[in-house]
Amino acid sequence: MVEAALLFTPGPLTTRTETRRAMLDDWGSREPAFTAMTTELGERLLDIAGARSSHVAIPLQGSGTFIVEAAIGTLVAPSDLLLVLVNGAYGDRMVEIARRLGRRIEVLRWPENRPVDPVVVERALIDCPAITHLALVHCETTSGLLNPLEAVATIAARHKKPLLLDAMSSFGALPLDLGGTVVAALLASSNKCLESVPGIAFALIERSLIARAKGVAPSLSLDLFDQWRGLESNGQWRFTPPVQVVAALLEALRALEVEGGPRARARRYAANFRTLAEGMQRLGFRLFLDPSVQAPIIATFHAPGDERFRFDAFYAALAKRGFIIYPGKLTGNASFRIGCIGALEPADFEQLVAAIASVLDDFGLAPERAAEVQSFDASAEVRR
Amino acid sequence: MVEAALLFTPGPLTTRTETRRAMLDDWGSREPAFTAMTTELGERLLDIAGARSSHVAIPLQGSGTFIVEAAIGTLVAPSDLLLVLVNGAYGDRMVEIARRLGRRIEVLRWPENRPVDPVVVERALIDCPAITHLALVHCETTSGLLNPLEAVATIAARHKKPLLLDAMSSFGALPLDLGGTVVAALLASSNKCLESVPGIAFALIERSLIARAKGVAPSLSLDLFDQWRGLESNGQWRFTPPVQVVAALLEALRALEVEGGPRARARRYAANFRTLAEGMQRLGFRLFLDPSVQAPIIATFHAPGDERFRFDAFYAALAKRGFIIYPGKLTGNASFRIGCIGALEPADFEQLVAAIASVLDDFGLAPERAAEVQSFDASAEVRR
Repeated sequence: MVEAALLFTPGPLTTRTETRRAMLDDWGSREPAFTAMTTELGERLLDIAGARSSHVAIPLQGSGTFIVEAAIGTLVAPSDLLLVLVNGAYGDRMVEIARRLGRRIEVLRWPENRPVDPVVVERALIDCPAITHLALVHCETTSGLLNPLEAVATIAARHKKPLLLDAMSSFGALPLDLGGTVVAALLASSNKCLESVPGIAFALIERSLIARAKGVAPSLSLDLFDQWRGLESNGQWRFTPPVQVVAALLEALRALEVEGGPRARARRYAANFRTLAEGMQRLGFRLFLDPSVQAPIIATFHAPGDERFRFDAFYAALAKRGFIIYPGKLTGNASFRIGCIGALEPADFEQLVAAIASVLDDFGLAPERAAEVQSFDASAEVRR
Repeated sequence: MVEAALLFTPGPLTTRTETRRAMLDDWGSREPAFTAMTTELGERLLDIAGARSSHVAIPLQGSGTFIVEAAIGTLVAPSDLLLVLVNGAYGDRMVEIARRLGRRIEVLRWPENRPVDPVVVERALIDCPAITHLALVHCETTSGLLNPLEAVATIAARHKKPLLLDAMSSFGALPLDLGGTVVAALLASSNKCLESVPGIAFALIERSLIARAKGVAPSLSLDLFDQWRGLESNGQWRFTPPVQVVAALLEALRALEVEGGPRARARRYAANFRTLAEGMQRLGFRLFLDPSVQAPIIATFHAPGDERFRFDAFYAALAKRGFIIYPGKLTGNASFRIGCIGALEPADFEQLVAAIASVLDDFGLAPERAAEVQSFDASAEVRR
């Protein structure tokens, strides 16, 4: 029997067996037992961000894009003006969502390998006082880049503009305290650093902000004000929740606590990243990002210059050996991605690197000499 | 150890252990193994409705309401006029969705215990030629009422108006052949008569209709045209799919085939309903609906007239015995509901009736004499 493949992907990713086993029961969606699960879910999500007194947790059926659309639709009114900070595909997606919803936007752009520049952001806020909200992607899954959240949040707070944060690829691992860092709405999903299965996303929204959002959303399903009011009134989701997915996420959140919380998880991911990055460099691969902006979440590698390299064949050969990697998403750069998140340890990354070496060897693409290897500490963001 | 409770609910409901066990693996959302699962899913859904050559299957993350909103938003343009046929909460929900999306609507209403009247529908189409689309709920989960789909579909086809059908509570059990019954868009979800876990809904849409729907949807997440084009182009979902929920639904669809398809399932549900209805009548309960319009999907009972009856206490006492029932949703009638669907057999309903008898006894509410018992055949719709 073949052992299950390991997923080195940005989510869905490798989850713990216990997390998946939590889905082996049935629950009625209006049972007290299930409402208690929803309540615990919200409390645990808020606690991760130190936000139980300031924010409310609003879960939503669907993927990360659903919660981003729901948040923009619910919190940004047609008369508002949203400034979107873009340096990757997920920033672009916020632009696309806002346009589709008919929201007014301004966009600031940076290259995919460069962080958002807080100085430019502040200048835009000063030059354009009509801006009412900001939107930022914390860790851009496109590249693995970490944007300067604290600096941007400080500026947003100084100018009293609510900040919407796509924390999809960071929540649960990169340290975050909403008591100190002012984020009006944090958006994330079950299936990345929380290491659960996909099917739920959620928003942590300042109570005072969501309380003013009645009747703004142009959608019934994606109205986070209504979703919040429903939960507050009877503890129930307005529309059928994915009960097993909720159970899995709850189990995953308990496991996060047992591991030692986001700080411990970030240390494990940093060790995963280091093992991967150093091993890949020995094989001649180059990281796309400068270490100063690299989050230990997902690593983007340049495809080898050798014209015989074909990503599809590389992917398939690794899959056959039980290792699933991820295609690149950069514009104009041949690349591929390897996720450092999920229920994986450095030993798994040693095995992955060995498998990649063996595939390169099979393909006649092994490097002729050991490349120079830069050593990686956990990133500054994680050490703090 | 307490045995797991049985859910007599309209979904989420009692699923087979094998269905839940199908969620014990991880899949990458862009893996060929998972794309193959998505393809099989679509084919099996189309085959249930005999629609592989005429329709396309478009799955969507979320609950049934998400797919209803997605279909109205994608298929009904702002300049169109949607006639919604309402005799329960789910008809009303279509009205609410269309209003929220800014779609133009006309509404025809009937009481919750009366079926939609095709004669009135046809008169409306003649009187108001501006109507472009019709929307009907097949089986109203509010009451358990079965609307006259074939008659309405025939009229819609005669007037060349696309019919949007909320088949949430009927798909997979009540016979349906889209080769003979003209339904432009059929909407359903994973967690009712297909007997899987919640988290996915889907639309079966005439290929020619969805092909004309580019750029209509006011939402990115809920754009079924884009979702379809994405699936057609590379077999992948646009946004992270709930991979385990897909696996469970696929397993449930295989089990439906093994059971003998919708016709065999309808027979089992009819036997469940008969066992329940006869047993409940012996205990003095009265069904809300006339047998002529009752689908064997969910049964609505009047709450007993005895003023000592409290639904919450009744529910809790049954839950303690391992039987989960469902509150009523009628306007102006004290009632409760018991689902006849899910991985349940008539023997389970005998146990439920015995538990209800024992609870009534504990509460001093047992009937003084056996009530007159009407005997139930499977409904006409099922016999055909």
